[in-house]
Amino acid sequence: MAEPLFRRLTLLGIGLIGSSIARIAAERGDLAAEVVANARTQATLDRVMELGIADRVELDPVRAVEGADCVILCAPVGAYAVLAEAIAPHLAPGCILSDVGSTKQSVIRDVGPLVPEGVHFVPAHPLAGTEYSGPDAGFVTLFEGRYTLIVPPPGTDEEAIERVAALWRRCGSMVERMEPAHHDRVLAIVSHLPHLLAFTICGTADDLADESRSEVLRFAASGFRDFTRIAASDPVMWRDVFLNHREALREMLARFLEDAQAMARAVRWGDAGYIEDKVERGRKIRRSLIELKQA
Amino acid sequence: MAEPLFRRLTLLGIGLIGSSIARIAAERGDLAAEVVANARTQATLDRVMELGIADRVELDPVRAVEGADCVILCAPVGAYAVLAEAIAPHLAPGCILSDVGSTKQSVIRDVGPLVPEGVHFVPAHPLAGTEYSGPDAGFVTLFEGRYTLIVPPPGTDEEAIERVAALWRRCGSMVERMEPAHHDRVLAIVSHLPHLLAFTICGTADDLADESRSEVLRFAASGFRDFTRIAASDPVMWRDVFLNHREALREMLARFLEDAQAMARAVRWGDAGYIEDKVERGRKIRRSLIELKQA
Repeated sequence: MAEPLFRRLTLLGIGLIGSSIARIAAERGDLAAEVVANARTQATLDRVMELGIADRVELDPVRAVEGADCVILCAPVGAYAVLAEAIAPHLAPGCILSDVGSTKQSVIRDVGPLVPEGVHFVPAHPLAGTEYSGPDAGFVTLFEGRYTLIVPPPGTDEEAIERVAALWRRCGSMVERMEPAHHDRVLAIVSHLPHLLAFTICGTADDLADESRSEVLRFAASGFRDFTRIAASDPVMWRDVFLNHREALREMLARFLEDAQAMARAVRWGDAGYIEDKVERGRKIRRSLIELKQA
Repeated sequence: MAEPLFRRLTLLGIGLIGSSIARIAAERGDLAAEVVANARTQATLDRVMELGIADRVELDPVRAVEGADCVILCAPVGAYAVLAEAIAPHLAPGCILSDVGSTKQSVIRDVGPLVPEGVHFVPAHPLAGTEYSGPDAGFVTLFEGRYTLIVPPPGTDEEAIERVAALWRRCGSMVERMEPAHHDRVLAIVSHLPHLLAFTICGTADDLADESRSEVLRFAASGFRDFTRIAASDPVMWRDVFLNHREALREMLARFLEDAQAMARAVRWGDAGYIEDKVERGRKIRRSLIELKQA
């Protein structure tokens, strides 16, 4: 077995992503010699101990990060600023502070200025997830074959970046580096906008008269069913993603709404060529994804 | 084995749905004593014979329906009017004419007036499908546990309705009867609008600059990936659904766009409560679906 990458790895938040990292660390043994888990409630920490996926649990984030050489924020991004403010003065010199949040410009803006001299701040984002949440939802193969994007602010220590990359490679991820603004734009279209649309269509269906609504549920066909799966994700996480990702999300949503209006117009005027072209493009994109083995 | 429901069952169109019915008929033996398949091209019919899923193939729809006591339109709904005009004078007295299209008011409007005296017109719609098409795409379990909606115009012969219902029950479906206008409204929200949104978001992504587009594909996260699966469906079928379903689809799209604009506004103003409520409703609807065993 390879030498553990870290002596003490602290996970601040132990939901789907955090508990998957913890499970991998427990199984492989070469991520960290010791894993410390922190969560907002003792009940969650009790469950973590029952599951046996961390060496130690701490309700106080300050105690959780003491002596750690790697701390990963695995809470919803809206909780980062408060957490970072609390722990920053207690991070050991040379410690790496990383995260797994879906937005990166807001994280760099909120957390960056709090990071003390001598601590390396290396934001990251594993592109992996399911619609389940909590410490029971994690599993060791969650990151396998999926990309993890490392999104460091300019001037970040290269050795610290390499150690975070090594951690994710040991989790089974393919690692890529990306600029923060570019990351947020790409994620807006591949993840945040689809989720926003899925949440919206569930609301639209829910607003229909009572009788129609029960029929909508009863006869849910493949399209709607797939949307509800996307829409079943963690509410607090997604609220925070939307609120911390306004610019890129609003740009993509504006483009999408223009395109949806154009489609509505084509339906009204019976423009068969336009409609067929759009549907054909959907197929083409699906084929490209299959070729890239991301489908 | 039960007596076959029909002596000769003719399938006009032998794609995903038609070839699934043919496979079930071949396997069970109690749908029809003989199955005749028709398609637009001889190549498709040659493939049907290779697959061994029909007793006979006919390129000419008129010859295909001769002597049949049940004819099912399994082509895209846009092809129904031309097909129905060609076959109507050649349908045997007492024959049942049915279909599997996703829109029902347009089918009743286009096909109904062409149906000769003594022929029973029983429109139906199996709520089942995949993103694949063509005679190779069908499979015997496609309709299992899925609803088939029987949507007869007023005054339709009850015995004919019962025989179509029996056919779908033997295919594994749960059968329900529904009013045409109500059917189209429910389907607009559970199927047609989700597909329209999925096609649109693929177009929006495809319109991004070349560099971003390749990254969109490479880093396709779960939301977008699920949309591309929905968007990979048959272009001609969907073009026809949209064009034959303008009113209900435009009503649902207008509701949805209002809701999406409200969500965009909540994102702009940082209205956490509104966003959380919408996301929570997505979860609730997903849970209801799971309870109804439609997820």
